[in-house]
Amino acid sequence: MSEYRIERDLLGEKQVPKEAYYGIQSLRAQDNFPITGYPPHPALIHAFGYVKKAAALANRDVGVLRPNIADAIARASEEVIAGKLDNHFIVDAIQGGAGTSFNMNANEVIANRAIELLGGVKGDYMQVSPNTHVNMAQSTNDAFPTAIHIAALTLTGMLTKELKALIEAIKKKEIEFDGVLKMGRTHLQDAVPIRLGQEFGAYRRVLSRDLNRIERACAHLYEINMGATAVGTGLNAAPAYIEKVATYLAELTSFPLKTAEDLVDGTQNTDAYTELSSALKILAINLSKIANDLRLMSSGPLTGLNEINLPPRQPGSSIMPGKVNPVMCEVVNQLAFQVIGNDHTISLASEAGQLELNVMEPVLVFNLLQSLSVLQNGMRVFKEYAIFGMTANVERCRELVERSIGIVTAINPHVGYEVATRIAIEAMETGRSVRDVCIERGVLTEEELNVILDPQEMTEPGIAGADFLSS
Amino acid sequence: MSEYRIERDLLGEKQVPKEAYYGIQSLRAQDNFPITGYPPHPALIHAFGYVKKAAALANRDVGVLRPNIADAIARASEEVIAGKLDNHFIVDAIQGGAGTSFNMNANEVIANRAIELLGGVKGDYMQVSPNTHVNMAQSTNDAFPTAIHIAALTLTGMLTKELKALIEAIKKKEIEFDGVLKMGRTHLQDAVPIRLGQEFGAYRRVLSRDLNRIERACAHLYEINMGATAVGTGLNAAPAYIEKVATYLAELTSFPLKTAEDLVDGTQNTDAYTELSSALKILAINLSKIANDLRLMSSGPLTGLNEINLPPRQPGSSIMPGKVNPVMCEVVNQLAFQVIGNDHTISLASEAGQLELNVMEPVLVFNLLQSLSVLQNGMRVFKEYAIFGMTANVERCRELVERSIGIVTAINPHVGYEVATRIAIEAMETGRSVRDVCIERGVLTEEELNVILDPQEMTEPGIAGADFLSS
Amino acid sequence: MSEYRIERDLLGEKQVPKEAYYGIQSLRAQDNFPITGYPPHPALIHAFGYVKKAAALANRDVGVLRPNIADAIARASEEVIAGKLDNHFIVDAIQGGAGTSFNMNANEVIANRAIELLGGVKGDYMQVSPNTHVNMAQSTNDAFPTAIHIAALTLTGMLTKELKALIEAIKKKEIEFDGVLKMGRTHLQDAVPIRLGQEFGAYRRVLSRDLNRIERACAHLYEINMGATAVGTGLNAAPAYIEKVATYLAELTSFPLKTAEDLVDGTQNTDAYTELSSALKILAINLSKIANDLRLMSSGPLTGLNEINLPPRQPGSSIMPGKVNPVMCEVVNQLAFQVIGNDHTISLASEAGQLELNVMEPVLVFNLLQSLSVLQNGMRVFKEYAIFGMTANVERCRELVERSIGIVTAINPHVGYEVATRIAIEAMETGRSVRDVCIERGVLTEEELNVILDPQEMTEPGIAGADFLSS
Amino acid sequence: MSEYRIERDLLGEKQVPKEAYYGIQSLRAQDNFPITGYPPHPALIHAFGYVKKAAALANRDVGVLRPNIADAIARASEEVIAGKLDNHFIVDAIQGGAGTSFNMNANEVIANRAIELLGGVKGDYMQVSPNTHVNMAQSTNDAFPTAIHIAALTLTGMLTKELKALIEAIKKKEIEFDGVLKMGRTHLQDAVPIRLGQEFGAYRRVLSRDLNRIERACAHLYEINMGATAVGTGLNAAPAYIEKVATYLAELTSFPLKTAEDLVDGTQNTDAYTELSSALKILAINLSKIANDLRLMSSGPLTGLNEINLPPRQPGSSIMPGKVNPVMCEVVNQLAFQVIGNDHTISLASEAGQLELNVMEPVLVFNLLQSLSVLQNGMRVFKEYAIFGMTANVERCRELVERSIGIVTAINPHVGYEVATRIAIEAMETGRSVRDVCIERGVLTEEELNVILDPQEMTEPGIAGADFLSS
Repeated sequence: MSEYRIERDLLGEKQVPKEAYYGIQSLRAQDNFPITGYPPHPALIHAFGYVKKAAALANRDVGVLRPNIADAIARASEEVIAGKLDNHFIVDAIQGGAGTSFNMNANEVIANRAIELLGGVKGDYMQVSPNTHVNMAQSTNDAFPTAIHIAALTLTGMLTKELKALIEAIKKKEIEFDGVLKMGRTHLQDAVPIRLGQEFGAYRRVLSRDLNRIERACAHLYEINMGATAVGTGLNAAPAYIEKVATYLAELTSFPLKTAEDLVDGTQNTDAYTELSSALKILAINLSKIANDLRLMSSGPLTGLNEINLPPRQPGSSIMPGKVNPVMCEVVNQLAFQVIGNDHTISLASEAGQLELNVMEPVLVFNLLQSLSVLQNGMRVFKEYAIFGMTANVERCRELVERSIGIVTAINPHVGYEVATRIAIEAMETGRSVRDVCIERGVLTEEELNVILDPQEMTEPGIAGADFLSS
Repeated sequence: MSEYRIERDLLGEKQVPKEAYYGIQSLRAQDNFPITGYPPHPALIHAFGYVKKAAALANRDVGVLRPNIADAIARASEEVIAGKLDNHFIVDAIQGGAGTSFNMNANEVIANRAIELLGGVKGDYMQVSPNTHVNMAQSTNDAFPTAIHIAALTLTGMLTKELKALIEAIKKKEIEFDGVLKMGRTHLQDAVPIRLGQEFGAYRRVLSRDLNRIERACAHLYEINMGATAVGTGLNAAPAYIEKVATYLAELTSFPLKTAEDLVDGTQNTDAYTELSSALKILAINLSKIANDLRLMSSGPLTGLNEINLPPRQPGSSIMPGKVNPVMCEVVNQLAFQVIGNDHTISLASEAGQLELNVMEPVLVFNLLQSLSVLQNGMRVFKEYAIFGMTANVERCRELVERSIGIVTAINPHVGYEVATRIAIEAMETGRSVRDVCIERGVLTEEELNVILDPQEMTEPGIAGADFLSS
Repeated sequence: MSEYRIERDLLGEKQVPKEAYYGIQSLRAQDNFPITGYPPHPALIHAFGYVKKAAALANRDVGVLRPNIADAIARASEEVIAGKLDNHFIVDAIQGGAGTSFNMNANEVIANRAIELLGGVKGDYMQVSPNTHVNMAQSTNDAFPTAIHIAALTLTGMLTKELKALIEAIKKKEIEFDGVLKMGRTHLQDAVPIRLGQEFGAYRRVLSRDLNRIERACAHLYEINMGATAVGTGLNAAPAYIEKVATYLAELTSFPLKTAEDLVDGTQNTDAYTELSSALKILAINLSKIANDLRLMSSGPLTGLNEINLPPRQPGSSIMPGKVNPVMCEVVNQLAFQVIGNDHTISLASEAGQLELNVMEPVLVFNLLQSLSVLQNGMRVFKEYAIFGMTANVERCRELVERSIGIVTAINPHVGYEVATRIAIEAMETGRSVRDVCIERGVLTEEELNVILDPQEMTEPGIAGADFLSS
Repeated sequence: MSEYRIERDLLGEKQVPKEAYYGIQSLRAQDNFPITGYPPHPALIHAFGYVKKAAALANRDVGVLRPNIADAIARASEEVIAGKLDNHFIVDAIQGGAGTSFNMNANEVIANRAIELLGGVKGDYMQVSPNTHVNMAQSTNDAFPTAIHIAALTLTGMLTKELKALIEAIKKKEIEFDGVLKMGRTHLQDAVPIRLGQEFGAYRRVLSRDLNRIERACAHLYEINMGATAVGTGLNAAPAYIEKVATYLAELTSFPLKTAEDLVDGTQNTDAYTELSSALKILAINLSKIANDLRLMSSGPLTGLNEINLPPRQPGSSIMPGKVNPVMCEVVNQLAFQVIGNDHTISLASEAGQLELNVMEPVLVFNLLQSLSVLQNGMRVFKEYAIFGMTANVERCRELVERSIGIVTAINPHVGYEVATRIAIEAMETGRSVRDVCIERGVLTEEELNVILDPQEMTEPGIAGADFLSS
């Protein structure tokens, strides 16, 4: 009448809750690693479902796994893929053992569910064994990296979809703001005129390159090391199985997965992850820069630049009535910092690989999948709550252009840098306009200045008043 | 008969679930920031309970908050402290707005619970207002940092307790292993003899300095900026209130909290966090180094150094039968990488402060509290599952000493570095012992060598056979 | 008879040493930025020569710069390219002003040298003006990034050449060591057999991917922003000039340089650098992992793994006679740490861009070019002094395989994981071989074991003794 | 008549330039490590002088080194300390071998100079041997860390002097600007009034804590491991020598140096460096934040905040006449990024220690000493060229306060947050002042508002118009 069943392994026995699909090795891992309190990322759990199903089918096909067992494993795996057994994945996101505990948790859950599907009682591993059957022809060292690849590809797909939508949203603003003349600033100091749409065009372009970088980084993730088993040599994995398991995985996931050319390499090295993480870090850097720009441009409203308005999303202060803050930009900055820090952890974990294996993969994948998720989530709300409703203060922007003396730059080709400098200084010190000083000093005529000092013209390549040069 | 109540703020109205203690601003934040899926750290939630209780009592004492309202707020806050309302803290760990959403979530939960305690209906903010009453004389900009300080101090206290226990456990091994003679290694190359206990003594000492660094880093956390309100100037906070709120907080938390000397400084700067995080990073580095050493020393067993045995904690491989891995060391490495990466994120967030405030505090505190927790958790299991049951392979250690020729170093003072080098090369090339070569070459007598080449003697300062030098 | 000439700018006048080609603005920068004591990287200086020559020729072609002046500037620029004027670049590698001081140093040096070539006296800027003539149609904000691109491409070319040579050298070892059977290790624990050549094959492959990543990262560097001038709008730069300057630069440098599609983007964003730096960081991580492996494998010789021998390069110890350390691996680790840290600085600098410009480019380029150089230098000596002369201890490697019980894994498919585990434990505890225990326990016949336990077979995919499975 | 002498070591022989004080091992290192092209930091070279002098005197005193040799070594060491032999330190800043090459370079230079002082010929190591005499009772593993400690302490002393001067300069501005009323900003949005002097007071305070952190970090540097020799056990180092060498070093350097309590710990661990580097990183973060604030406050002048003026230091643009940029702030940002990146490298190097030694110390010390130097240099010019001459635009600051509606916060205690919010929104939307809306809405009288809305009062703690509350 106990609520527990007893399971045994090489270290002894343990009570397992009767209803649990996980088993003794999952419990050992739970005891050993109460580190973060976070479970594995759902995408990783589901990815294990694909791996175990594909392996079972491939083993069946090559004749080493009995069809009824293979079938039961496949059906149990489908439930894992569908997220129905998430709660039975009890091991911590950060764990020792190179992911063995993730893999054994998956093996045990699928074995026990398969046993049930075959009409047996959980824990009766003579029917379906976590190691001998579910893990057949596999090692953690190929099953886990393969699951990581699938999880990362899944989340990357979601991320690139959001990134594309963000790029689209920015492109709309680029068009909408194309006519908004404003002062360009370098060093936060008045420079020369630019159009607000041009700034958004630059945002669009850099994010498009990020999209490209991230998509390119997937290429190496398509190479999986199933069949590598323990150290990449393929011990206990028949060549026919290796071929079939990759084919099944490609079919099941719809990703163009294929067996790595060199399985020792595929087991030893983690550059597929550092490459993706680096691409995410660069995206984070660029998003943070854009968020900073928007915060600057929307600063004020009365004591700042006040060139644009971000949609108000929540009262900004618990004490200052009426205050509204650029919270969607601020959260982008913060998740960018998170992603940059995660990349650091990933680099440390990658460098710590030794000989045939990198045992630091759990912390690596925890950070990688988190980066993918927070970027995806953050870009979605940034687009919806900051970009979509953003407006420009057209009048304010124009007023700042007119007030500035940076437009003096346009007279350089006509009078030289040294003379232009003297004009600029005089304008600044006297508070008069560049135009007035030029006329008074007789360096250019009013007619010439009408052409040369047109701020709109200054926003495209060309020497304003080039005709006067030859005169 | 609706299951919702309607709440309003400056941006409009929203449906709030009837049973919810949180209100409209929490909901807005939930919409705006679906970033990590992680709630605030419980320690942070509970810390807000202290802050709000202390503020209510202080406001009551200085006569600006009616006693019955203050009392209800205090009682509601106690429930927050006790963890009874954790589920009503619904805002994401990473959020824009410098923690305003954390603070408003706390204000709303406490206001609604206080209203109930006064016999009212949730949402009737005329009775107890989240902003006017619960947040009275506060801003997010003082309430949130103060809550961070309290949460960090609480977790630091738990961490230092575990660190002390780990140091104790290592000290026991230092004593136990004091007689275990082994080969010292530098550059992973054979060097000169050392005792295993000496190595553990060095581990103990570096961790003791870590303890000291972390405790010292708390000093600045004891200074809180309650009363700073919006920008540190104390607008709307009476001096008597400022004094009282610090006194109440010190009493309630038992930490020696006191008002920062300069509240503008206390609001603008985040070096208290970077200092603590740096101390945690250094601890992480040192733990990782120790874990690496133990993994090296326990490597093998048959093809590695095999000097020590770590307690087996779980089957090490899903494919290799009988394999047991140093999983507790590996998890320490990984959490160390996490903490080092977190420190990076914290540095980025700290540097991004602008003018009167650092709006990046949410991501900063998320990482800081995570670092504190994972270190605490990790050190506990490392101690229990790796240190406690560790044993030394005494014979193996001694055998390696005897096999080595690094002991040639001891003849330097007698024959000079150049002659000793020739002896060493001859011993290496011929496979004979240093002793034999010395005798054959006639550089030292057997009697002298008995004294000079005693490996045990080599593990303490001194020139072995110094008497012979004068002869 | 003074040794100085007097120069003036908008801030006043300064004494410039008579023989100096630099001028007042270089001197101001020298005063302002005595930060690192390091001059600009020679590759950056020489790249400025290309930029200034191309600009002069383009300006001449479009008719805004007189041919004799253009010619003098071009000739002076050639001397800069040839490294003849390196000593006149006196500004510090880290400087404020977004590289204005680098650019003005180049403008002044070239102007003064051009004046001399025209028969004038240094400082007579009426003849050739640093700003009006040498900097014509340019801003620091296009000239400096373009110079960075050229310098980075130059050094990347040198780096990839060394990387290819390193890959070649490793490939030779892969072939040479293909027959060396050794024990594979995961978690630093005995796993299953592998061939030393396979390990080197994995090193070769990961470095080949690094090569690919670095070459791909160059693609974006080929896009230059000459013509962007101050903020990317092209103010004062005629379209014909923009076209010509890119053509000239491509010709002069032999890189496929072309004008960026969007000059505002090209001026505002620094992702070309973060992308290259990320690729370098990943290379550094992989090199460090390889260096760590070699240090492990060569550890000992008498108390370590002792599987390979690195060529001795220098006496390893000032006190321990005869000691030789893996110094070439250690220097690779260290330069990898440098490159990883540099990438961090580069990320910080990239994120700090604001609006139209990233003013942090000097520190960014300092770190980027340093990373390129130290990797190039380090890989060259690593190849020559560590890879070329490396040898394997074939007997020792084989002996470790024979001693190990990890080969038990091969019996899994025949007896199941659970039975294999019991065999492994018995072998470990009794010190007998896996083979003997199997026979004694009657789980497999001697004939079967001869096939199944062949370690050489274990290093390629397949189920050893698969024929017995069907029997 | 050759210009070379021949030297030999265990690996063979080499030609050494006749005039060179360095010898064969320095040359080997030069060949092996052409990595950065940077020589050791002068402070490190000079520190070796102290170490070698102290060791020679201590060895003489305990009777193992002949007085005439000891004396010659001491005199040669003094020349090293004085910087007279800097050019003979030819090994690269980044090198394999845990600093053995630094140490041997020092041993060789001092031996050869000592030989000369004794009337001998360079290279005649029978007279004075680099290993046997100059390195007597030492190993790289104690001599090098001790030299690092001395070099770091020397540079830290110079840095803290500059930091104190910077704090003093900021304090003067704090006093000078105490009366400058300006708008406080949080989230870059208008908040409530503050005084410019208060902001500078916060800068002063955070830097004062940095000073304290850095000074505290020196404490552990005072503990040196001379006498540890190879692995910390003190092999070949007589206890009397260990005591004397520390005493001599303390005397010679004037630092309170003392022997580490545990020499194994002192040799194995590098936390003294990570602690100092962390303190430097925090300083860098804080300086960067201050530099960012000053760049924001000085932005414009016509299209930015324009609250303060930084002294013009150089023409800001090669194309925009009259532009002056905040270059001294920008260089502070950049060196801060450098220091933060350096800390990263230092962390990586520290974590990579193994067993008895950290062989990554060369890259660690390269970065540590660089951080110390660039911070010192940068703070000096920041103080002189940015802080000293800074002025406030008092009128502009006041005008921004008057324009803002953030002052509405002060009416909270009188009318509650909700009513105040309605006032704020109406003021914002209509462009009228808070005062006017309050009067019109009848929420407060003119008399009350005169007291409550006094911005000067808002910059100190208190409830403005608290008297009205009771009424």
